[in-house]
Amino acid sequence: MRFVVIGGDAAGMSAASKVKRKDKELEVVVLEQTEDVSYSACGMPYSIGDPQRDMEGLVVRPPQVFREKQGIDLRTRHRVERIDRDRRTVAGTDLDGGRDFEISYDKLLIATGASPAVPPIPGADLPGVMSLKRLEHGRRVKTYLASHDVKRAVIVGLGYIGLEMAEALRGLDIGVTLIEATDEPLPWLSRDLAEVVMSELREQGATVHVGRPVEAIEAIGQRFRVRSGDLELAADLVLTSTGVRPNSELAAEAGLELSVGRSIATDRRTRTSDESISAAGDCADAYHVVTGRKTWIPLALRANRAGWAAADNVLGRPTELEGVAGTMVVKVFDLEVARTGLTVREARDEGFEPVEQTIENRSRAHGHPGATTIHVSMVGDKKRGRLLGAQMVGREGAAHRINAAAVALHAGMTVDRFSEMDLAYAPPFGPVWDPLLTAANVLQKKL
Amino acid sequence: MRFVVIGGDAAGMSAASKVKRKDKELEVVVLEQTEDVSYSACGMPYSIGDPQRDMEGLVVRPPQVFREKQGIDLRTRHRVERIDRDRRTVAGTDLDGGRDFEISYDKLLIATGASPAVPPIPGADLPGVMSLKRLEHGRRVKTYLASHDVKRAVIVGLGYIGLEMAEALRGLDIGVTLIEATDEPLPWLSRDLAEVVMSELREQGATVHVGRPVEAIEAIGQRFRVRSGDLELAADLVLTSTGVRPNSELAAEAGLELSVGRSIATDRRTRTSDESISAAGDCADAYHVVTGRKTWIPLALRANRAGWAAADNVLGRPTELEGVAGTMVVKVFDLEVARTGLTVREARDEGFEPVEQTIENRSRAHGHPGATTIHVSMVGDKKRGRLLGAQMVGREGAAHRINAAAVALHAGMTVDRFSEMDLAYAPPFGPVWDPLLTAANVLQKKL
Repeated sequence: MRFVVIGGDAAGMSAASKVKRKDKELEVVVLEQTEDVSYSACGMPYSIGDPQRDMEGLVVRPPQVFREKQGIDLRTRHRVERIDRDRRTVAGTDLDGGRDFEISYDKLLIATGASPAVPPIPGADLPGVMSLKRLEHGRRVKTYLASHDVKRAVIVGLGYIGLEMAEALRGLDIGVTLIEATDEPLPWLSRDLAEVVMSELREQGATVHVGRPVEAIEAIGQRFRVRSGDLELAADLVLTSTGVRPNSELAAEAGLELSVGRSIATDRRTRTSDESISAAGDCADAYHVVTGRKTWIPLALRANRAGWAAADNVLGRPTELEGVAGTMVVKVFDLEVARTGLTVREARDEGFEPVEQTIENRSRAHGHPGATTIHVSMVGDKKRGRLLGAQMVGREGAAHRINAAAVALHAGMTVDRFSEMDLAYAPPFGPVWDPLLTAANVLQKKL
Repeated sequence: MRFVVIGGDAAGMSAASKVKRKDKELEVVVLEQTEDVSYSACGMPYSIGDPQRDMEGLVVRPPQVFREKQGIDLRTRHRVERIDRDRRTVAGTDLDGGRDFEISYDKLLIATGASPAVPPIPGADLPGVMSLKRLEHGRRVKTYLASHDVKRAVIVGLGYIGLEMAEALRGLDIGVTLIEATDEPLPWLSRDLAEVVMSELREQGATVHVGRPVEAIEAIGQRFRVRSGDLELAADLVLTSTGVRPNSELAAEAGLELSVGRSIATDRRTRTSDESISAAGDCADAYHVVTGRKTWIPLALRANRAGWAAADNVLGRPTELEGVAGTMVVKVFDLEVARTGLTVREARDEGFEPVEQTIENRSRAHGHPGATTIHVSMVGDKKRGRLLGAQMVGREGAAHRINAAAVALHAGMTVDRFSEMDLAYAPPFGPVWDPLLTAANVLQKKL
């Protein structure tokens, strides 16, 4: 039996490795269009921000390890262009040889990931206007910074990567301006918490414009001009961070069913509408644990996990994947910004009757020095009392705390029940009542 | 109606405040034998460790606020010596006036807390041999340190307070020796994790002796000699940290039912075997969420929570208290040491068939600078796959992470299910697979 994987990033390599680990006899072919597999894409802003660090340090396992030690037939620089479901083949171009290839499969995994969703702005394709998703993008930005005298950067969009790059570039003493098209920046946070993040950006010396759609990016010699109405921003480097879109074109052309945001529709076992074909990672949809409905939240942990589940299918011991809670954390300068579950708006769109409560709390106990403010927003459903989501922002104690709320979402807890959890306390780490518990205690009274 | 509370610490003042907040007409009398109510007892080691800080900074609300702003009849320096259940009275001594008092109650709350369980060592009652539980103890230690030239301290026992005091005293450049009677220090951690903590103590310059029961503490002028067989330790200060015992004598003498470790037996509504009398806080037992059986784990959050529940009873709107998971965290020098649920030994004693898995993981993502080791021990039940407990030790990322496992224990999750949780990831805060997930993934294979 031959298992073919399209895409050698988190989901694809997790699947390939697990299959080969469990069954050495099974033929596993991975087709990856870039040169890179198995790297920490999320680490790129931090590598870029530190000239002492080499981008290659983000590589977890180089291709030859997969080939030689794990026996995976890993073919980098192989771009897949067609899936023929009737003949069970994939075909494309070997970018090094420039030759076409075709290979048959018994089981296929589409793990094509996502790509930056750059809006159709004139000039967005200029060299020096870059986004950050794959390792090759990271190398490009790092090389650009090393070879150009970059004094000012403009970041278009307030995506996670944009927020992280603002910190990275400020650390390199580069002036940073962020420009966001919509009036409501960071819609994945409550308004109060978004305001805390915006203040941090400004306090750290970044300039932020909101409600300013970029109309054009113009090259002026080695520099750029980013235009939005009467606003003109000069820059030596332009980064776009306007979200990502799933790489689902191959799947769509093969007639596979699509889902939320044009992600590839999968069942709980990662199978697409063709049961010989799985999809996993940033290109695939998932069930949301709060709504029970389909969602598309491309995050690294899910990609790894779905890769394993796809492998289980191939190995003939299917496992059902738990849904996602959309738990994430991002560092924005000195802030830990975390969320899980639904925002009040998302909850309303999903038919809940959401109530939101925002509280401020201390990161350490009463009287303990060094305490900073922790902001918590919690969302519950007035109809059934259920916990729907939580968000936290703070200089310490937000990143890992959010996980307690995430587990509560998986367990389908009410706000009332969550308020009863026995959480840890010691003066250096928080107040007696954990900020999440205080938020739950207050929210409960509104439900 | 008159509600009388014995003990003005966390549980007692929480109950008194809540009752008065909800029903101004209800008469609330609190009888507290010391001068202090409402303070952060857990903060004492940190206050002692910092000569710039005043112990009074730990007071959250001084007595007059409860009296004047909240209308609570708070009587400090009132020691209760008898409960007469037939006549519904409590009686004792007003320590300031030296007079006896007697007061009748309609509802009574026993919130007498716990006391240091100092073993009967000759010399344990010498001045300069101290323990740390109430604020008056903290003042005593702080004053002693300020007025004596303390160069060496011996800490008898490896209780939480002893571990915290080791850090506090080392920070004051005082030599610290810890001496523990049993062969297995820190039995609330797996052996591997206990070893990590012991190494940290030693690396930070503390000397640790285990398997050394102290036979005597002798005064030699202003100094002390702590003896255990052929081991003789000189000290300017001796602290005992050998655990606590519940202050249940009053309850026992009144014929109330006792429970685990001689704590006061309570139902889920905090009621003792006399339904006019509740007990809450460190003196009372609780149900354990993992075993469903009675346990005695005196911790601050539970005391506050049980105080509220006792208030609800008085207010005629009884609420059932959720059980405890025994979640706790303690800072040991640069280590965050956290646990929730059962250790493998506790689990075995409770009739489970426990399997333990210890893993090491990184506190930050692959390639991210500044990563340190996170140690996780996880315990699951071979019979039913259930998650029974988890412990974590690390220089960062342990204190708040433990809460995710705590919520899973409340939800009665299996290890398998816990391994499916959608937890947060970003490179500065951990690996893609949270250390708890990795522990669950590995443990699952053993179950």
